[in-house]
Amino acid sequence: MRALQLQEWKSDPVMVDVPEPDPRPGQVVIRVGGAGACHSDLHLMHDFEGGLLPWGPPFTLGHENAGWVHALGDGVTGLEVGQPVAVYGPWGCGTCARCRLGAENYCENPAEAPVPSGGGGLGLDGGMAEYMLIPDARFLVPLPEGLDPVLAAPLTDAGLTPYHAVRRSWSKLPPGATAVVIGTGGLGHLAVQILKATTAATVIAVDTRTEALDHALRNGADHAVTSDDGAAASIRDITGGRGADVILDFVGVDATLAMAAAAARTVGDVTIVGIGGGTLPLSFFSVPYEVSLQTTYWGTRPELIEVLNLAARGLLRPDTVQFPLDQATDAYHQMENGQLTGRAVVVP
Amino acid sequence: MRALQLQEWKSDPVMVDVPEPDPRPGQVVIRVGGAGACHSDLHLMHDFEGGLLPWGPPFTLGHENAGWVHALGDGVTGLEVGQPVAVYGPWGCGTCARCRLGAENYCENPAEAPVPSGGGGLGLDGGMAEYMLIPDARFLVPLPEGLDPVLAAPLTDAGLTPYHAVRRSWSKLPPGATAVVIGTGGLGHLAVQILKATTAATVIAVDTRTEALDHALRNGADHAVTSDDGAAASIRDITGGRGADVILDFVGVDATLAMAAAAARTVGDVTIVGIGGGTLPLSFFSVPYEVSLQTTYWGTRPELIEVLNLAARGLLRPDTVQFPLDQATDAYHQMENGQLTGRAVVVP
Amino acid sequence: MRALQLQEWKSDPVMVDVPEPDPRPGQVVIRVGGAGACHSDLHLMHDFEGGLLPWGPPFTLGHENAGWVHALGDGVTGLEVGQPVAVYGPWGCGTCARCRLGAENYCENPAEAPVPSGGGGLGLDGGMAEYMLIPDARFLVPLPEGLDPVLAAPLTDAGLTPYHAVRRSWSKLPPGATAVVIGTGGLGHLAVQILKATTAATVIAVDTRTEALDHALRNGADHAVTSDDGAAASIRDITGGRGADVILDFVGVDATLAMAAAAARTVGDVTIVGIGGGTLPLSFFSVPYEVSLQTTYWGTRPELIEVLNLAARGLLRPDTVQFPLDQATDAYHQMENGQLTGRAVVVP
Amino acid sequence: MRALQLQEWKSDPVMVDVPEPDPRPGQVVIRVGGAGACHSDLHLMHDFEGGLLPWGPPFTLGHENAGWVHALGDGVTGLEVGQPVAVYGPWGCGTCARCRLGAENYCENPAEAPVPSGGGGLGLDGGMAEYMLIPDARFLVPLPEGLDPVLAAPLTDAGLTPYHAVRRSWSKLPPGATAVVIGTGGLGHLAVQILKATTAATVIAVDTRTEALDHALRNGADHAVTSDDGAAASIRDITGGRGADVILDFVGVDATLAMAAAAARTVGDVTIVGIGGGTLPLSFFSVPYEVSLQTTYWGTRPELIEVLNLAARGLLRPDTVQFPLDQATDAYHQMENGQLTGRAVVVP
Repeated sequence: MRALQLQEWKSDPVMVDVPEPDPRPGQVVIRVGGAGACHSDLHLMHDFEGGLLPWGPPFTLGHENAGWVHALGDGVTGLEVGQPVAVYGPWGCGTCARCRLGAENYCENPAEAPVPSGGGGLGLDGGMAEYMLIPDARFLVPLPEGLDPVLAAPLTDAGLTPYHAVRRSWSKLPPGATAVVIGTGGLGHLAVQILKATTAATVIAVDTRTEALDHALRNGADHAVTSDDGAAASIRDITGGRGADVILDFVGVDATLAMAAAAARTVGDVTIVGIGGGTLPLSFFSVPYEVSLQTTYWGTRPELIEVLNLAARGLLRPDTVQFPLDQATDAYHQMENGQLTGRAVVVP
Repeated sequence: MRALQLQEWKSDPVMVDVPEPDPRPGQVVIRVGGAGACHSDLHLMHDFEGGLLPWGPPFTLGHENAGWVHALGDGVTGLEVGQPVAVYGPWGCGTCARCRLGAENYCENPAEAPVPSGGGGLGLDGGMAEYMLIPDARFLVPLPEGLDPVLAAPLTDAGLTPYHAVRRSWSKLPPGATAVVIGTGGLGHLAVQILKATTAATVIAVDTRTEALDHALRNGADHAVTSDDGAAASIRDITGGRGADVILDFVGVDATLAMAAAAARTVGDVTIVGIGGGTLPLSFFSVPYEVSLQTTYWGTRPELIEVLNLAARGLLRPDTVQFPLDQATDAYHQMENGQLTGRAVVVP
Repeated sequence: MRALQLQEWKSDPVMVDVPEPDPRPGQVVIRVGGAGACHSDLHLMHDFEGGLLPWGPPFTLGHENAGWVHALGDGVTGLEVGQPVAVYGPWGCGTCARCRLGAENYCENPAEAPVPSGGGGLGLDGGMAEYMLIPDARFLVPLPEGLDPVLAAPLTDAGLTPYHAVRRSWSKLPPGATAVVIGTGGLGHLAVQILKATTAATVIAVDTRTEALDHALRNGADHAVTSDDGAAASIRDITGGRGADVILDFVGVDATLAMAAAAARTVGDVTIVGIGGGTLPLSFFSVPYEVSLQTTYWGTRPELIEVLNLAARGLLRPDTVQFPLDQATDAYHQMENGQLTGRAVVVP
Repeated sequence: MRALQLQEWKSDPVMVDVPEPDPRPGQVVIRVGGAGACHSDLHLMHDFEGGLLPWGPPFTLGHENAGWVHALGDGVTGLEVGQPVAVYGPWGCGTCARCRLGAENYCENPAEAPVPSGGGGLGLDGGMAEYMLIPDARFLVPLPEGLDPVLAAPLTDAGLTPYHAVRRSWSKLPPGATAVVIGTGGLGHLAVQILKATTAATVIAVDTRTEALDHALRNGADHAVTSDDGAAASIRDITGGRGADVILDFVGVDATLAMAAAAARTVGDVTIVGIGGGTLPLSFFSVPYEVSLQTTYWGTRPELIEVLNLAARGLLRPDTVQFPLDQATDAYHQMENGQLTGRAVVVP
């Protein structure tokens, strides 16, 4: 079969012929229905090299995947050939306390995982091919009725990541509270949708780009604030001086982190999702009292089920642009050139 | 001033002339903008008698009130004459652990309250008059901008009571969960709105009346189920056999309680809000494992602030029918005859 | 090997010779170190018959088990031969939402479990034998250092069941709160220990037997109340009139349920653990406002890990009486005659 | 009466004669039973000057106070002359959302408080005098039976502050979890006691001083680790490589913050209580995934009630050294010289 592979660090991916995978006991092969192209793939192509990660090329790209069960290994129960499924992407050891609760994104024994701290499309073969090997049936989540694998695929990361960040802060978002989304692009605009669907909080979108702010408003944001030196003051103004209860930073550069610290309400949450490389000098008086600052990384398997439920019911609507498998490299080129108007999904 | 008073147990209320109230230190007098008429007022007129309650007539009716600050007693701070306010209705002692958190509905020292286990319109003078005396400034909540006292008044009970019942169950209502509202009348249809505004749960409305079900669907309910012997089976069917995560019973008769127990999912909530006089024989095997059953009564002061926020932002929209003060008795007559199509609000 | 089997409903168990089990892929065989004898085994012997359960005899008794890994089926990882382990007893389907979080006690697809709604010692072969077959490696929990399988075995049910009931109520048990344990026998005295180890609540023991109350006081209970018509009044007295925040009923007869309803504080918890067959007529005014009433059944796998941690650190100390395998029937006889002074553990 | 006053910034306090206070309506005067001397008082004497704070000298020192009700202003209910009480120290506006829940430490309208962002002993007269004026009865908490005001006084800050920091992390401290206390001096050794009384977590004490570590072990800590470059590695070692679930830093210098970040478990808490002036450069990869970092400041009124309950039951035992009022300056001298072996309490 055809597969888009990264063959060595610091290279462009190439389309190659590889054998179709066969499932061993406990494994499953899916026919890929959609494989999302993610900005982090560009980092894989351009920024990494041997030694930085415990795994490396060659492997097939694509860590946002959905499709249909194609072949079941011995002993797999609860799945049927032809059934539509999404792939839960962070593959952990399966037996540590975190994995036992479905939080394989925070696996505490990565050395025991299918590939240390990686997964399909991240060291092991991903979904930019006709078929994909799933090393354990627990990584598959049945799609709810009516949800197309092409829509489901990008939600496994671009939907799950903001969902996890929002969900952990629900208790701070009753009616009257305010949530700020910094960076309303691929993940951020879904954060806006998730906030509107699951809470009654007021949502403020912050971005440097007018079109991203307009898009956020169309997706339900209550206010749009241009990301500049006055943004924190604008947020304080909108919130009657109190500041925002929850701030989700999908950018993560020095300036956005500083803005978040300045705009947060006491006892609020500032969550860093974007890997922009910024640093916040945290000290007793640099953030309001008892504001909690944390990063989040991807999400849990039970949360993926909730994300797919939202999407099947029309409450989460990713913008997608489809590419056939043999034009997958175009998807990445358009991404690099900023030409994409939605999440690129490769459809083999 | 004119006031609609209950003058003795088991009598119809009458319009009388009473002196305008004067605020003592710490007290406030409001000019009434709206006073909701509640079914429980009918019980006051018809079902109670001396000895059943620690207080009694005469007193002005109306325990759902909003208006404008008219006069401030000595020492009251944080309020201004003319400011629009809603009245938090359950008046407790103010110093027990429950009252200190604003849960005066569950005051543990009712003997120290303004009137034991009562309040304005419930033993003390209520809002069906031109002015109303508020015995402590803490019972007033400023109205958010743009919220009319006529809309705010019924929300202080008919909105706050379902809000409290829904809010305490939020953690059991993530996407994919199901909430059932039994009895989608005055309080129940607001429960539907509150569920839709604050969660992404699927909402099932249950009622015996087709028009109430249609109304619930227009208010956002996802499914309508006729309340009969097959209702529990229908709910199990809609939920894929699992049962409903949260069931709110605004009726509270034997049949609805039995339905709730039969339709609940393990580890779910069954909350009895309606005082229909029913009994559920609770035993180890009569309800699914770890379903929590509880009553709720009214709500807390912080919750009232959240209710008013939802209403000011258009997310909570009570149906109201206005009556001038001198036609207040008509409101109760229409209520008794089932002629009302919304919450009756008396506007002095 | 020798095994104590129930060979038909309504019969005494008998010691028989059976083949040693062999693990298939994914399975494990353990050498039994201890198998607790539970009152519910007496019900299996005396009260059940064909048709009441989806499974039946013959099977080896013993659903509280711990020992050492003896043989690993193909594909099992993370366990080593010789490693001490406890057996998580409620065996579910492993793939429903509940099982995915380790709450197999509330499995929603029992038809897909190893035996429907049962487990080892409950339809499948249990631990009263030299070896025991574990149908999936996920049912084994490694023992923490220093914890003897003889102590661990009874904790898998007699420890886990009260632990789950206590843990779910932690948020209602800050300093100043009161917990009541009704029935301080096998499970109840461990509930007292668990409450003292994990909260700073005041603990009231309630029992009809003076020696059980003395035992509870030695285990840390702060107050002992004789279970009679005055018990609820005594509890209100101890709590300054407010009532108890959490009441755990390990008896579950009409009288104890009525006492619990009468002794509970508003917004408290009444949890029915004991299967005494009692019924509480639940209505709007029969229990204080917003008291939550629920049953609980067994516990979750993550909770078992916590129970074993408490025991390994000396914070949970079950009283046990050991019996060799060929005297296992004596354990049940002494249990029936009330002669046991601790949990009977059969040591093969 | 005699009072120890700070008369100007950057000066030593002096003993002066001042008039006895009289309570206006809503106010209370207490006879002081004990007034704790706190390290932060040294900062008041030495480090502050006009312009840094919205208030200033002269005022009587002492912000940790307990005693007996001496005189009640008009309209005060629920308190009796002679009743022993503790003073809740953070005095807010009383009407913002935070104050309404008793979290006056995080008042959102400090300009409306008795003194902006201050309180008794912090801009207004404190407890180092025979009598103290309490500007609102809500700042008094009745002492539980058997608790001496001399013990209660230091708990209002040195007990309440660590209690708040511990309590907010309870959900991350089930059996098997680990809590680290960095700096086991005045507040830290009480944090150890609070952790042991309210959770079953393993407690690791970290300090540079051998005697402080020994003291922590006598107060219940399970492990003692010397605070140096190897401390984080030692903590990882004790926790099986996972890191600590909750780290409370009562020092707050660069080195302890860096140690906390290095020793924390994913999804854990790092709480900065000590105002040591340190900074942690926070970035996506500088702390483990989803570790929450926050400061805390003092605690809430409901929490003070819980602290006093623990102390009255012997579960919280501050070390105190008593000084008569006319030797109050000695207390501060000994504090500066490191000669104190417990919390200094001035007893007028």
